[in-house]
Amino acid sequence: MTNANGKLTEEKVFKDPVHRYIHVRDRLIWDLIATREFQRLRRIRQLGTTYLVFHGAEHSRFNHSLGVYEIVRRIIDDSFKDREHWDNEERLLCLCAALLHDLGHGPFSHSFEKVFHLDHEDFTQAIILGDTEVNSVLKRMGATFPKKVAEVIAKTYKNKLVVSLISSQIDADRMDYLQRDAYYTGVSYGHFDMERILRVMRPQEDQVVIKSSGMHAVEDYIMSRYQMYWQVYFHPVTRSSEVILSKILHRAKKLHQEYYSFKIHPIHFYSLFEEEVNVEEYVKLDESIVLYYFQVWQEEDDPILSDLCRRFINRNLFQYVEFSPNNEQMMKLMELTQLFKKAGIDPEYYLVVDSSSDLPYDFYRPGEEEERLPIHLQMPSGELRELSRQSDIVDAISGKRRTDHKLYFPQDFIEDLSTKRNIKKKIQELLEL
Amino acid sequence: MTNANGKLTEEKVFKDPVHRYIHVRDRLIWDLIATREFQRLRRIRQLGTTYLVFHGAEHSRFNHSLGVYEIVRRIIDDSFKDREHWDNEERLLCLCAALLHDLGHGPFSHSFEKVFHLDHEDFTQAIILGDTEVNSVLKRMGATFPKKVAEVIAKTYKNKLVVSLISSQIDADRMDYLQRDAYYTGVSYGHFDMERILRVMRPQEDQVVIKSSGMHAVEDYIMSRYQMYWQVYFHPVTRSSEVILSKILHRAKKLHQEYYSFKIHPIHFYSLFEEEVNVEEYVKLDESIVLYYFQVWQEEDDPILSDLCRRFINRNLFQYVEFSPNNEQMMKLMELTQLFKKAGIDPEYYLVVDSSSDLPYDFYRPGEEEERLPIHLQMPSGELRELSRQSDIVDAISGKRRTDHKLYFPQDFIEDLSTKRNIKKKIQELLEL
Amino acid sequence: MTNANGKLTEEKVFKDPVHRYIHVRDRLIWDLIATREFQRLRRIRQLGTTYLVFHGAEHSRFNHSLGVYEIVRRIIDDSFKDREHWDNEERLLCLCAALLHDLGHGPFSHSFEKVFHLDHEDFTQAIILGDTEVNSVLKRMGATFPKKVAEVIAKTYKNKLVVSLISSQIDADRMDYLQRDAYYTGVSYGHFDMERILRVMRPQEDQVVIKSSGMHAVEDYIMSRYQMYWQVYFHPVTRSSEVILSKILHRAKKLHQEYYSFKIHPIHFYSLFEEEVNVEEYVKLDESIVLYYFQVWQEEDDPILSDLCRRFINRNLFQYVEFSPNNEQMMKLMELTQLFKKAGIDPEYYLVVDSSSDLPYDFYRPGEEEERLPIHLQMPSGELRELSRQSDIVDAISGKRRTDHKLYFPQDFIEDLSTKRNIKKKIQELLEL
Amino acid sequence: MTNANGKLTEEKVFKDPVHRYIHVRDRLIWDLIATREFQRLRRIRQLGTTYLVFHGAEHSRFNHSLGVYEIVRRIIDDSFKDREHWDNEERLLCLCAALLHDLGHGPFSHSFEKVFHLDHEDFTQAIILGDTEVNSVLKRMGATFPKKVAEVIAKTYKNKLVVSLISSQIDADRMDYLQRDAYYTGVSYGHFDMERILRVMRPQEDQVVIKSSGMHAVEDYIMSRYQMYWQVYFHPVTRSSEVILSKILHRAKKLHQEYYSFKIHPIHFYSLFEEEVNVEEYVKLDESIVLYYFQVWQEEDDPILSDLCRRFINRNLFQYVEFSPNNEQMMKLMELTQLFKKAGIDPEYYLVVDSSSDLPYDFYRPGEEEERLPIHLQMPSGELRELSRQSDIVDAISGKRRTDHKLYFPQDFIEDLSTKRNIKKKIQELLEL
Repeated sequence: MTNANGKLTEEKVFKDPVHRYIHVRDRLIWDLIATREFQRLRRIRQLGTTYLVFHGAEHSRFNHSLGVYEIVRRIIDDSFKDREHWDNEERLLCLCAALLHDLGHGPFSHSFEKVFHLDHEDFTQAIILGDTEVNSVLKRMGATFPKKVAEVIAKTYKNKLVVSLISSQIDADRMDYLQRDAYYTGVSYGHFDMERILRVMRPQEDQVVIKSSGMHAVEDYIMSRYQMYWQVYFHPVTRSSEVILSKILHRAKKLHQEYYSFKIHPIHFYSLFEEEVNVEEYVKLDESIVLYYFQVWQEEDDPILSDLCRRFINRNLFQYVEFSPNNEQMMKLMELTQLFKKAGIDPEYYLVVDSSSDLPYDFYRPGEEEERLPIHLQMPSGELRELSRQSDIVDAISGKRRTDHKLYFPQDFIEDLSTKRNIKKKIQELLEL
Repeated sequence: MTNANGKLTEEKVFKDPVHRYIHVRDRLIWDLIATREFQRLRRIRQLGTTYLVFHGAEHSRFNHSLGVYEIVRRIIDDSFKDREHWDNEERLLCLCAALLHDLGHGPFSHSFEKVFHLDHEDFTQAIILGDTEVNSVLKRMGATFPKKVAEVIAKTYKNKLVVSLISSQIDADRMDYLQRDAYYTGVSYGHFDMERILRVMRPQEDQVVIKSSGMHAVEDYIMSRYQMYWQVYFHPVTRSSEVILSKILHRAKKLHQEYYSFKIHPIHFYSLFEEEVNVEEYVKLDESIVLYYFQVWQEEDDPILSDLCRRFINRNLFQYVEFSPNNEQMMKLMELTQLFKKAGIDPEYYLVVDSSSDLPYDFYRPGEEEERLPIHLQMPSGELRELSRQSDIVDAISGKRRTDHKLYFPQDFIEDLSTKRNIKKKIQELLEL
Repeated sequence: MTNANGKLTEEKVFKDPVHRYIHVRDRLIWDLIATREFQRLRRIRQLGTTYLVFHGAEHSRFNHSLGVYEIVRRIIDDSFKDREHWDNEERLLCLCAALLHDLGHGPFSHSFEKVFHLDHEDFTQAIILGDTEVNSVLKRMGATFPKKVAEVIAKTYKNKLVVSLISSQIDADRMDYLQRDAYYTGVSYGHFDMERILRVMRPQEDQVVIKSSGMHAVEDYIMSRYQMYWQVYFHPVTRSSEVILSKILHRAKKLHQEYYSFKIHPIHFYSLFEEEVNVEEYVKLDESIVLYYFQVWQEEDDPILSDLCRRFINRNLFQYVEFSPNNEQMMKLMELTQLFKKAGIDPEYYLVVDSSSDLPYDFYRPGEEEERLPIHLQMPSGELRELSRQSDIVDAISGKRRTDHKLYFPQDFIEDLSTKRNIKKKIQELLEL
Repeated sequence: MTNANGKLTEEKVFKDPVHRYIHVRDRLIWDLIATREFQRLRRIRQLGTTYLVFHGAEHSRFNHSLGVYEIVRRIIDDSFKDREHWDNEERLLCLCAALLHDLGHGPFSHSFEKVFHLDHEDFTQAIILGDTEVNSVLKRMGATFPKKVAEVIAKTYKNKLVVSLISSQIDADRMDYLQRDAYYTGVSYGHFDMERILRVMRPQEDQVVIKSSGMHAVEDYIMSRYQMYWQVYFHPVTRSSEVILSKILHRAKKLHQEYYSFKIHPIHFYSLFEEEVNVEEYVKLDESIVLYYFQVWQEEDDPILSDLCRRFINRNLFQYVEFSPNNEQMMKLMELTQLFKKAGIDPEYYLVVDSSSDLPYDFYRPGEEEERLPIHLQMPSGELRELSRQSDIVDAISGKRRTDHKLYFPQDFIEDLSTKRNIKKKIQELLEL
């Protein structure tokens, strides 16, 4: 342990159910894992509220972050070892960026970011560059090292090969989460031959390309991704819990703005409500804090806040029907909105359209928003060819955005409308219950 | 859905990574799962603080309870189906007892029970029999049904065959947790051929016995249990986190007793501190509540409470050395206690002996404390033979209690004793650092 | 064991790596497995020469046949149990047809059938209906029972629901072989959630349909099939071994027709050479018989036969280049044919185009050759909808035949053309070596 | 491909279901695998007749040999890489010995060796040192290299560290076969954490020792071995097929000695019958040759030979009862022998005692037959301690030989003794049928 930035005297391992073992040989990585900002990821679930549908999915971002680190380590230490000169700093840069890429995620990020206008990527940058334990460990590698790590994660780092390991359409992040989320949910999708993909990755000047003989393993990976999105990530019941979660945050924020007097002061939420969160406050947030408030809010006097919190905590979710945003259905929605109001059920919180949308793979469309780098195959001749030009299956789904809309509502409230028979009947007809 | 206690119109399934699917056909089971007392188990981890060592072990008691239910369901619906007359009430009794057997577990039960003198089994009884959603669902089967369920879990129910399915040395509880904890931690122990064990189970008058041809599968199960105890459950680093957790609770209780003024009133802890917890308060407790307080206590003025909470939250644990409770080592411990006091490190919180002990399998020892029913093999002749009389391997470990003692302390504090060189040196010598 | 067609006194199980256990409760099934015609399937590999590329793929058709039986048993005994009245004969009919569907496969069927103009389906019929142990066991169920089993396998049986369990685009046959071949080769394709598919199968009047909520599991199955075809079944090196195998059979047949005097009389091949094989002779054939002759033929005087046999036995296969049957390449092939002749390498045996072709899924095209029944989804409304109309992914590959051509040749022979430098050089140029 | 003994231009891989991929980087290894002597191992099953009980166990010694090679490669290339200087020749020596250690195995070795007094270890030596393709590839490394490889396999090589990698109580051979045989049979035993064991292996002067922190993984491995022996390798039904196999060989040999005229000359067996097999003849033998003869012998005139062959081919095995070689049972056996003779059933072939015996682990017993090197743990102090002194479980089974005897006989013959009622009845009584 002589050199703070050198090798550990003995390799450390973490037992990991997905990659068997996570291997750590660098003191820098070991010390980053021990920081409070990284340990905080243990208290933030990888898949938000998905555990309310797939009960196995209780794993944290800590899990996933170690997994991404391990995949990048294998690529660098095994697959690239004879091929390319990586100086040690560049190597550690990759490993740190892999480990820290999700550092800025907050509790239930998806809903929090939308309601409070946060961006976890900004916080990742802020934690790496701010007055934090992570920053202080990274600085041991040199004053500019934290900035470089932040640039790799922000995809602005000059060496695009390094960037592409962490962020591309076939990066370590995606390869870890597909396998990990499949493992914890127990679904049979999400399996692909990662070992083969790692073996056919070839570093090029500005990107990692795939030897064409490995095309089928990549096809399998893309199909896994497609299935995981629609079977797990966009599961309509998970989206019901996300809808309720968002509405809780909306309601609490509104009550705060209206000077409502909470029984227990939600001190951890004040800066969120004001949309003026600093790093120090942000890293104190995690899902146990949020769940604490949701639990005490069950007993608040505001009937909407307490009802929504009880629904979330006790998993009494909204039902849903299919919804298409066409004229006819929009008219129906307006009618339902009116009926809900008449029935005394506030449609702002209890009649919600949620839309999910995914682009499973895309070729390069320069200039477009959310521009994505395509996957390139290296043909036997050495020529590079974009994946969807070579693979029928990928071509079939390439560039095709799939969107799904659902209308969420509390069926129990509607059933309880016993004194308003007519309204109840009309609502039930419109919702085809 | 005509009959509240009948069959569901369509079987419901939960995707489970260990048993593939959990199948629910009975409305009673479906409704029990939806109660707030059962949903609360989602917020209590199956393995307490083990996730600080095996990062995958973040699964909840909700997971495990469904698993135990599913195993009992398979035994009854598949293995026993042609063999024994189970009337429907007896069948549902088994299923309910399996599902609810851990209902009374609180947050980090192990430490909470010791410090606050609680017993999760008492609370399981109290929740089943009290004014709860669970009780109200169970009562649909008849006024005495909750009591019967409680008796099965308490092992006092008259039909001992039913009891032995839930609680024996080879019960559904153990079969689920060994496999589940192995799955989530990722260790390779914990595998055994459950399908075979289920196939060789034979209901007898007052117990489930094992057809002798399945002996090797049972041996394998007992070895799995042995390995899981020593490799996972009693891992010395997990025990370090349990030591810190206990000391936090001790400290907070003591401060409360000394009228210490907490910055945020720990209202959820008051009845614990007073050791007068009722069911209503108890079911509001979960691990997010506890972690909330541990986080805010990081900023309390009491240096011991804030230090211990910071250690727990940021996983800055105690180190340990081997310890044997013999005269020589007890003398050493006393000497260390004095040195710690001189160094200003309170030994009550920072110098802790922890002992773990397990009896992997035991034959029947009537009258002894913790009397356990042995596993019986049914020989081809029909004769019953106690397992350890037939299996060399089981005989080798049968009745042999293994105990391990460790001495825990904060190495960083000792290293920081820069102004007290002599004390530091003596402590380091005694701890062989 | 009172009734020869009744239940076994105790259920028998086979340990199976794919389905964990194969369960047999019917004496009829147990006795069919014990027949010499069924035991013969142990000596015929499931994947022919694939083991020369995927060394794990040494499993037999015996394995697979038990697996298909087990899947059908689960569908009938579990998934259909509450839904449909199956009288016991209909049930046994399904089980027997599942178990026996591949009974007529001979050694290395693919090549043998092409060279000797055999059809394994004809032999399956002949064995079931002929003077065999299988026939005699089946007849215990009634004189017409063998005929019914044969009809189910031939897809002419009147109850189309029974037929569709055994032969459709999502039948028990395919579900077993995809999983089994993936298991033994070790490839990561071939996984899909069969348990889910079994759960969403619904018997209709004349077919098994799939509840639409299970569509994604079926998509996954179809993608597995697609990948297995191109990654395993049509692997170009496996096809090289099949090319050599066919050429051995061609050569031996030709030698026989030319009254060549074999050192050891190939008595087992005579009726094949004459294309007049009867059932009794056929069931004596298996892969050990064939490999015996290939081994002794290594020492035959005919240089082509002995060379080809040595190549096959010692896995010294042909190399290949891509080939497209367009004008330019056909001209090249003719030129190569001439050059091979000049070089003294008989192009009939040593310059071979092999084409593989697959239609991964097809909707219904009445009247077309190889007409296939489509997979129907049962929508929530009850309406049936053909799979490719509902699934983007399946639509993308539906009805699209993919074909691959390769040109095979012995590279070592070409390299050895040292005295014919010019010819060697031209051949190498044309083959782009 | 410049240097015949150097590295391949591109690493080659074999897909392997147990180790995922087998990696070959050395031309020498690649060329050894291509030899006819090594390819022959594809036609010899790893577990002899076990496939007649566990139908999945159809895998060959080719499979296993690649697996042992891969484990040794990982130990050398990964686990030892930073620890010890291995010059390239020593490294290749290990790899070649691992790959070739079973090269001399013949068809159904167990029975063939006993009946014809062969020793597969002698043939391994003879093939490596004789006029073979393997020898010629090995000689490229130097004239003495084949001899060194042979010495490593014979455990006489001077560097005992190299020997211990290939042959010890925790060697690559055992680690591969336990996992592989478990995979193909499908049993749940045979799992242990090999990756952990590889990580805790430490090369010492003359042996590989195990870091004490890995003790539990080694315990698990030893328990796996114990279970595999008794659940799979010594399965009483497998032993029934081995009994029949041995008796076929005995009978054929005896008939040959008595100048019996076989319908088809068993030319491949002549040198076996005479017990004068040379290497050239030996490497022509494989299981397809043997099965060919067994099939044609079904139609021999000798009733014993044809009956036994029909039993073997059609899996019509002998039944068995427990047997203890004590006075009482020996008397019974003699009585049965007489009764069999009277009944016209030759007891030499049809009344057979088979004994299986295993010593699961042993500490060092110098001078004893079958002397075994113990497993040593390296304690934190550096001290070496023999495994059974540290592990309770291993101690419990250490040095304890377990033996099982069974008496085999053809139950169908006894049932058919209709004209000899008295004899039949007495036999049935003695066998407790």
